[in-house]
Amino acid sequence: MVDAQRLRRRLEQLSTYGRPAEGTFDSGVNRVAYSDADVAARAWLLDEMRGAGLRPRIDPAGNIFARWGAEGDRPPILFGSHIDSVPSGGNFDGDLGSLAALEVIQACQAAGITPRRPLEMVVWAHEESTAFGRGTAASRIVAGDLKASDLDQVWNGLRRADAIRKIGGDPARIENAVRSKGAWHSYLELHIEQGGTLDRASVPIGIVEGIVAIHRYDVEIVGFANHAGTTPMGERQDALVAASTLVLAVREMVTARQGRQVGTVGRLDVEPNSPNVVPGRVRLSVEFRDLSEATLTSLGEELRVRADRIARESRTAITATLATRNPSAPADAAVQGAIGRAADVAGLDTRRLPSGAGHDAQMMAALCPMGMIFVPSVGGISHSPKERTGWDDCARGAAVLLGAVMDLDQREDV
Amino acid sequence: MVDAQRLRRRLEQLSTYGRPAEGTFDSGVNRVAYSDADVAARAWLLDEMRGAGLRPRIDPAGNIFARWGAEGDRPPILFGSHIDSVPSGGNFDGDLGSLAALEVIQACQAAGITPRRPLEMVVWAHEESTAFGRGTAASRIVAGDLKASDLDQVWNGLRRADAIRKIGGDPARIENAVRSKGAWHSYLELHIEQGGTLDRASVPIGIVEGIVAIHRYDVEIVGFANHAGTTPMGERQDALVAASTLVLAVREMVTARQGRQVGTVGRLDVEPNSPNVVPGRVRLSVEFRDLSEATLTSLGEELRVRADRIARESRTAITATLATRNPSAPADAAVQGAIGRAADVAGLDTRRLPSGAGHDAQMMAALCPMGMIFVPSVGGISHSPKERTGWDDCARGAAVLLGAVMDLDQREDV
Repeated sequence: MVDAQRLRRRLEQLSTYGRPAEGTFDSGVNRVAYSDADVAARAWLLDEMRGAGLRPRIDPAGNIFARWGAEGDRPPILFGSHIDSVPSGGNFDGDLGSLAALEVIQACQAAGITPRRPLEMVVWAHEESTAFGRGTAASRIVAGDLKASDLDQVWNGLRRADAIRKIGGDPARIENAVRSKGAWHSYLELHIEQGGTLDRASVPIGIVEGIVAIHRYDVEIVGFANHAGTTPMGERQDALVAASTLVLAVREMVTARQGRQVGTVGRLDVEPNSPNVVPGRVRLSVEFRDLSEATLTSLGEELRVRADRIARESRTAITATLATRNPSAPADAAVQGAIGRAADVAGLDTRRLPSGAGHDAQMMAALCPMGMIFVPSVGGISHSPKERTGWDDCARGAAVLLGAVMDLDQREDV
Repeated sequence: MVDAQRLRRRLEQLSTYGRPAEGTFDSGVNRVAYSDADVAARAWLLDEMRGAGLRPRIDPAGNIFARWGAEGDRPPILFGSHIDSVPSGGNFDGDLGSLAALEVIQACQAAGITPRRPLEMVVWAHEESTAFGRGTAASRIVAGDLKASDLDQVWNGLRRADAIRKIGGDPARIENAVRSKGAWHSYLELHIEQGGTLDRASVPIGIVEGIVAIHRYDVEIVGFANHAGTTPMGERQDALVAASTLVLAVREMVTARQGRQVGTVGRLDVEPNSPNVVPGRVRLSVEFRDLSEATLTSLGEELRVRADRIARESRTAITATLATRNPSAPADAAVQGAIGRAADVAGLDTRRLPSGAGHDAQMMAALCPMGMIFVPSVGGISHSPKERTGWDDCARGAAVLLGAVMDLDQREDV
């Protein structure tokens, strides 16, 4: 019922907005939120939606919504994703879920199905964390997480209020973008996995159990910068030796436990960072992710214990500050069930797995029952021009999204 | 015989050239070679030298020389240091040896001593590695290590030929700065230790055994950058985990051996260096220093063996390239003997030690027998406004320099 050819053609068309000059589909996209490429892609998508007989509206935060089907007061089933990208991003992250959402409505139209509840598709305005340094920003506003001062934030010379205006939003009425709990019956998002679990297992459909919580620590290690030639090894207070011990400790404590938690030191800056000076200071990030907040809290406690020991042994001072704490967002059991039944009907294998990446679905979990469908990323690669999902897998994902929407439409227990 | 008060007063006067605005002696100096502060300090020093009845000349490389005493063809005894500084440097590194050299001549004048050989003081023009990225640059020219293209080098918008002209040198005649082996009878340099060995041991005089060789490797570790949330621990090719293992391996292999060799990872750069991305690439420096080239060669071999093992275990690719190879410069045994006798006469304890830092003396070792006298650095601190050497220690160092020059002047076996 889903038109796989149309879905592919639209993914290819969308890929031209933000494509590097002289590039091909394989060159990926630069379509950072609020960029000219983003504005052009949104205009193209609005045309496609109108071409399908929809009447899209842009909310004050810049999100694109379109309702279709049953009239009346029943809360709609919402589904969609985003089309902004990271710099040098791929053509599937967000794009697939956005265009599959339009496909779901067109499939219903083509089949003459009249759903019991209104269906609503959404294209979130600003999901990646490139612009203004924070992701899932437009769904965050809808979920009510907005300070007035946020609109004055400046990034790359662009004020956030002006950025929102640039994509057709209305910062003066931004509070009207906020929706209350129960505004939607449920929320569904189809997305590429951005990891290698499904690809390695050759499983076409992932049923997301929830989006992991993130605890991010800013760690500062203060030693003593000194001459690399004249300071004997025994007299050093080498901040990088201490930092290296901590990097390995993070890996060790995360892998020593049962479970799928991950821990990453992704950023590490050395001062003065000169070959002939013993490092005096290192700043680094430690990020833990897991569905279980208890696991993250326990990891954080172990981090402090280990850091204290490393500081003593290396004669440095180490401080670890919890800088970011994103709660986990469990997927609703009934929505997971609807996805599972849709996959069964289509004869597709499924695997349950957490989402290690953040998604707009996380924000929607605060407003209504949420579920996510994952399809395989070849080699687990994402946020790269090399990001790939097979066209068949794209179509399978869209079919399961359609099936899950239909399933939910029939249920009274959600 | 050395005028300790005059030496201190001159160190204090010199400290005003390049002193931060509103600063005091404790604020240190910014007197990078070829800066306006350097030019002003050199002008002041030339006046002080003329005031002592000397006729200073500036060689084509910008080095300041002044001969005194015996006329004739016998090669002079050369002694001195430098007055350029690192950014935010201290008031003793180089300054002490330069002003003590003037003090030696004035002490001979005051005592009515007529040395058998000519005495010659030198203030090298460019010792620190800040300007044009390489140190001991002006003594290097005198030792004959110069390529014509070096003069076209540009640093901070300044062409090196223009820089040399700015301090009174003559780049068109630069070859005339080159001196041949035997041009001097011997070379002596008084310098602060820049390490903590003498200070911790409460020994006032260090007799330098030689200046250590340096082998510096550029190491590149290539893993695979991936999403920190979606990439399971077991699937990662984390370049920073590999780098951290290598940092600890460097420390371990250096400390496991007998001897005073040091090994430092001073620079480490992570890509993409983002908290939510598994590091895909790390570039770092590994620097080994020791008097023994054999030790450094052996450490380099062990580095490669360890790097290969770490690469296999972390599924990364590691390349280590020998980027810099400074040979060691042994101090002459007879000159070390002269320093030891001078210290004995003054009733001062001595300790023999290598110089872990580079000095102009290293270049002079290629032309004549070389020796260096170290005095304690409080807390081993150097290249910092906190760099300190007690005034008494400054005077003791100058007295030993004087004594060693007098001793060498009497000897025929050097």
